[in-house]
Amino acid sequence: MTSSERVAVVGTGMMGTSIAMAAIRAGDAVRGFDTDPEALATAGARSELVAAGSFAECVEGSTLVFVCTPVPAVADVVCEALQLAPGAVVSDVASVKERVRSRVAGSARAADLGRYVGGHPMGGSERSGPEHASASVLDGIVWVIDERSEADPADRVEAFVRKVGARPVRMDGDRHDRLVAIVSHLPQVASTTLMGLAATEESGEPEILLLAAGGFRDLTRLAASSPHLWGDILLANGEAVGRAIDLYIARLGALREMVRAGDAAGVEQAFGQAKDARLSLAAKPTVRAGVAVLQVPVPDRPGVLAEVTATMSDAGVNIEDLQIVHSPEGGRGTVHLTVAAEAAPAAERALRERWFEPLRLA
Amino acid sequence: MTSSERVAVVGTGMMGTSIAMAAIRAGDAVRGFDTDPEALATAGARSELVAAGSFAECVEGSTLVFVCTPVPAVADVVCEALQLAPGAVVSDVASVKERVRSRVAGSARAADLGRYVGGHPMGGSERSGPEHASASVLDGIVWVIDERSEADPADRVEAFVRKVGARPVRMDGDRHDRLVAIVSHLPQVASTTLMGLAATEESGEPEILLLAAGGFRDLTRLAASSPHLWGDILLANGEAVGRAIDLYIARLGALREMVRAGDAAGVEQAFGQAKDARLSLAAKPTVRAGVAVLQVPVPDRPGVLAEVTATMSDAGVNIEDLQIVHSPEGGRGTVHLTVAAEAAPAAERALRERWFEPLRLA
Repeated sequence: MTSSERVAVVGTGMMGTSIAMAAIRAGDAVRGFDTDPEALATAGARSELVAAGSFAECVEGSTLVFVCTPVPAVADVVCEALQLAPGAVVSDVASVKERVRSRVAGSARAADLGRYVGGHPMGGSERSGPEHASASVLDGIVWVIDERSEADPADRVEAFVRKVGARPVRMDGDRHDRLVAIVSHLPQVASTTLMGLAATEESGEPEILLLAAGGFRDLTRLAASSPHLWGDILLANGEAVGRAIDLYIARLGALREMVRAGDAAGVEQAFGQAKDARLSLAAKPTVRAGVAVLQVPVPDRPGVLAEVTATMSDAGVNIEDLQIVHSPEGGRGTVHLTVAAEAAPAAERALRERWFEPLRLA
Repeated sequence: MTSSERVAVVGTGMMGTSIAMAAIRAGDAVRGFDTDPEALATAGARSELVAAGSFAECVEGSTLVFVCTPVPAVADVVCEALQLAPGAVVSDVASVKERVRSRVAGSARAADLGRYVGGHPMGGSERSGPEHASASVLDGIVWVIDERSEADPADRVEAFVRKVGARPVRMDGDRHDRLVAIVSHLPQVASTTLMGLAATEESGEPEILLLAAGGFRDLTRLAASSPHLWGDILLANGEAVGRAIDLYIARLGALREMVRAGDAAGVEQAFGQAKDARLSLAAKPTVRAGVAVLQVPVPDRPGVLAEVTATMSDAGVNIEDLQIVHSPEGGRGTVHLTVAAEAAPAAERALRERWFEPLRLA
């Protein structure tokens, strides 16, 4: 049995409002506040949170405060909340944990620091604003809780995380920052940089994007994310991000030297290691026995995707991943279906019965 | 009216066999040869090509030869074919054009060189082997024809390209190599390098991939491509690939310096430019008015994707792109639907009517 909390959400953007909605769904009472009255009004309209007239009114009397402001403001707001709500556990949702914690430790009264629990729900970074909020944003996502937090407050946050359907993972905040620099912040940097480079080259070579196929699109999708949000995140995790970029540049430079030296064995080895690692990275952790990818050529018209997915559904095959690769001119495309390896024969059979021609990747 | 050709395909891997199948579909007679008897037998079983007993038997008497061997062998095979089939136009399908052309020019008799037409059908690079061949591999793809070829032979290849359903694009081979280095070879390098880095870090931090979400998976999908094939391609286009990696490293380094210097305005500007470029890169060239992305939270069970796609089909909305983003634990996911911007309101309405909760990205 989880006791209910009086939750205060400060900053009613996408994540703050989603937390409010999930908390209300779980039976908690929620007050919200945002310095932007319009964001607060939208959040109030989407959820049943009580819009507070001021920051103080929002946090006073609460038992659990979530600070969901943009990253640069988080530490100050956490410190104020610790003061104004002396009985509350105060947590945050910032994508970086070390910078926030050291600032809170530098400003908060020593007696208050023990009630701060750093957190990071890892979902939804591509969208922003309360209009994109939903309780389901939190369903099943990893929610990192800083291990350096004191036991009882951390347990309170963990109980809340479980209650709203997310997956708590205890981790040292410093380590969290190093790891997300590699698997979250660096992919963002790599994608943005590739798109920026191609766009710059395009000004002299307008046909360059004619030659850009599915692989280029995969790699540049993240480049459409919010520049403001990502600027804040990268700067707040500057040291770890700088190190991740250094490691990436060093590897790229090594590969370039192998290419220039004509070192076929070296290039092939680097590619082979990456291929093995990618194939062992299951589409989802629940798919333990590995996955298979079926490539299905399809005409480009409404309804064809429904046929493919209905075929899988009828065959009882769960689609782990699906990707549409278009030919540059359109008109035809290929659907890449990722399914559990043991389900692949059934999937192939069902597709062939409906006259599709799936090709299974090794 | 396109006259029929006597086509010879040398190298019956994925692309060679696909060309044979498409030529036969278009009414041409096709002979094939491969130094690997098993590959030739598989190609013969999949298509109606006539398996030749030798290279000479394959090309003699043909009017159009396609050399589809691995990149390192292409130039030599082209020169031999020019000699053995003195009446034929000889083309190739290698991913790099300058290296092949200069080698052919260095070895072929001057009188023969005019019958060589460099080409590059831009499709299917992730799979290899005749078992993955299909005439539809060529449907609608861009097929680059080297502008430096002589007019009549180039016209013959272009007529063939149109006949099999692909889209001929005339381009200087040197320029082709520079452009594909940026939009095809560099994405491959960027993806492989990111996967290799994360795998190396994982040996010390096994939890790193727990924190890897959809963005990381997008960026590393290409890393599963064939190491041998890509080693050949990168080395054959070594100069342009080296330059592309240099440009990429320089941009990454500049971004790193901005991050380290705390230059928020600089980072935000770089991200903003890339975002604008990515949004203007339509999902397909046929979608001129721009696209919209709908994020649809879905439970993870067989059939749910069929519901989503059937909803779009019933509403008459064509899905330009579809991506499944899983929560790290599984159980829930989000489907990203890309549709034409003008179709987005209808798509949203139809989804809401069936109780989905689509969120539209700005």
